[in-house]
Amino acid sequence: MAGSKEVEELAGITVNPVADLPHFQPGMSVAKELVAAIDRAGGSLCDGDICVVAQKIVSKAEGRLVRLGDVSPSDEARRIGEETERDPAMLQLILDESSDLPRTTPQAIIARHKTGHVLANAGIDASNVSAEGDDIVLLWPKDPDASARTIRAELRKLTGVNPAVLIADSMGRAWRIGTVGTAIGCAGLTVLDDQRGTGKDLFGRTLQATVIAVADAIAAMAALAMGEGDEGTPAAIVRGADQWITPEDGPGAASALRPVDEDMFR
Amino acid sequence: MAGSKEVEELAGITVNPVADLPHFQPGMSVAKELVAAIDRAGGSLCDGDICVVAQKIVSKAEGRLVRLGDVSPSDEARRIGEETERDPAMLQLILDESSDLPRTTPQAIIARHKTGHVLANAGIDASNVSAEGDDIVLLWPKDPDASARTIRAELRKLTGVNPAVLIADSMGRAWRIGTVGTAIGCAGLTVLDDQRGTGKDLFGRTLQATVIAVADAIAAMAALAMGEGDEGTPAAIVRGADQWITPEDGPGAASALRPVDEDMFR
Repeated sequence: MAGSKEVEELAGITVNPVADLPHFQPGMSVAKELVAAIDRAGGSLCDGDICVVAQKIVSKAEGRLVRLGDVSPSDEARRIGEETERDPAMLQLILDESSDLPRTTPQAIIARHKTGHVLANAGIDASNVSAEGDDIVLLWPKDPDASARTIRAELRKLTGVNPAVLIADSMGRAWRIGTVGTAIGCAGLTVLDDQRGTGKDLFGRTLQATVIAVADAIAAMAALAMGEGDEGTPAAIVRGADQWITPEDGPGAASALRPVDEDMFR
Repeated sequence: MAGSKEVEELAGITVNPVADLPHFQPGMSVAKELVAAIDRAGGSLCDGDICVVAQKIVSKAEGRLVRLGDVSPSDEARRIGEETERDPAMLQLILDESSDLPRTTPQAIIARHKTGHVLANAGIDASNVSAEGDDIVLLWPKDPDASARTIRAELRKLTGVNPAVLIADSMGRAWRIGTVGTAIGCAGLTVLDDQRGTGKDLFGRTLQATVIAVADAIAAMAALAMGEGDEGTPAAIVRGADQWITPEDGPGAASALRPVDEDMFR
């Protein structure tokens, strides 16, 4: 019970934004810039740290920029573009990035991204993308879990420590207004902490059905600390959650997706 | 841009679980026990703190315990109970607590609670409820936003400072496995930070459509730090998020709910 807890078991979790990161360009190394920025701030990465990185900088570093003028929209993209009052070139990109569009209305286009994540506009973003103009949009990394593994391996090589890496993007929810940071790529982090049948409640009974979405909770808080727009910074270090860090990279953020046939809304 | 940030703008956010809280019984004061536990730990509440409290202890303090044997199930409860392979008494309570049951299957009962929140079993919980046995279940507070306001007023009276109060419960999501802490009651906290048309991106353009679900992000991280089951503690203090604290109590967590006619799944 609570009164018998050791102090260290109740130690807190801290989220610290990483200041002073550069604007990312295709070919730049997220890991290298992270280590340099943490170093400039007088800190250093430790085992047990979780590096949370905004999807935007990973996508930019991976060169996932597309000029809308270079896209040739198909008939389907033109049709949905008209129905939803959107640029057909944008629709073509959304179609290319998705396996399925569960909802297409003027209010929202909800896509099942090829990775399985369900979100607005297949994660394609037109803000904070490029100083070159509004014509450039940014796609998600092709495989965000693979991106997280790559960043983790590079961080390990650069620093000798083995932090977890989480790539976060802001997503909407079915019944609630507003977006929360959500895990789209993970390496070295317990994505789901499955306590079904193992955990006990305070009275010694087996917990009914508790699977904790650890990675999404960490992404939510880190995204809040990182901020949006010109007051934001695209990375943060989470400390005090080392109980969920794993030596192996693990199954990644995609393991938190409901299989399509268990989707509650089909 | 990031390089021009003041250090204090990038200060981190910390979540500290509150150890050593008692088992709550009907009539106990959540505010009083929180202040006492923080005091025993050698700390004190400050302006700018957000007190996150698990729904369970608020419900227990408000006496929201029901013995299933005391419930007389209606024909409707019996019918849905049979369809979903659940106790008809439990179904009766779910019906009583809800305005609508969007989904009733053996896998899950998804309810629109009378407050408007959409969640499994209308938030009714059978674990960690009472040492008296498995027959006792716990309902949500009748009006969690009102509960948060009451706790806040009492904290202010006891301590002289004016922290925000957030009541959190773990909820499932439409397309993702696992639960995350979610705000069900708030007082003195910006629930939605609406940056549409006001925020600028790094290149000086107006952000497209960003409404940040601040309260839910704070609830997610705090719930993770608090933990579940017998290793958990039902309260945490969040520091460093004071930019979202408001002197007035504000519209509460219910303001983050999509109106039923904007529900993307009807």
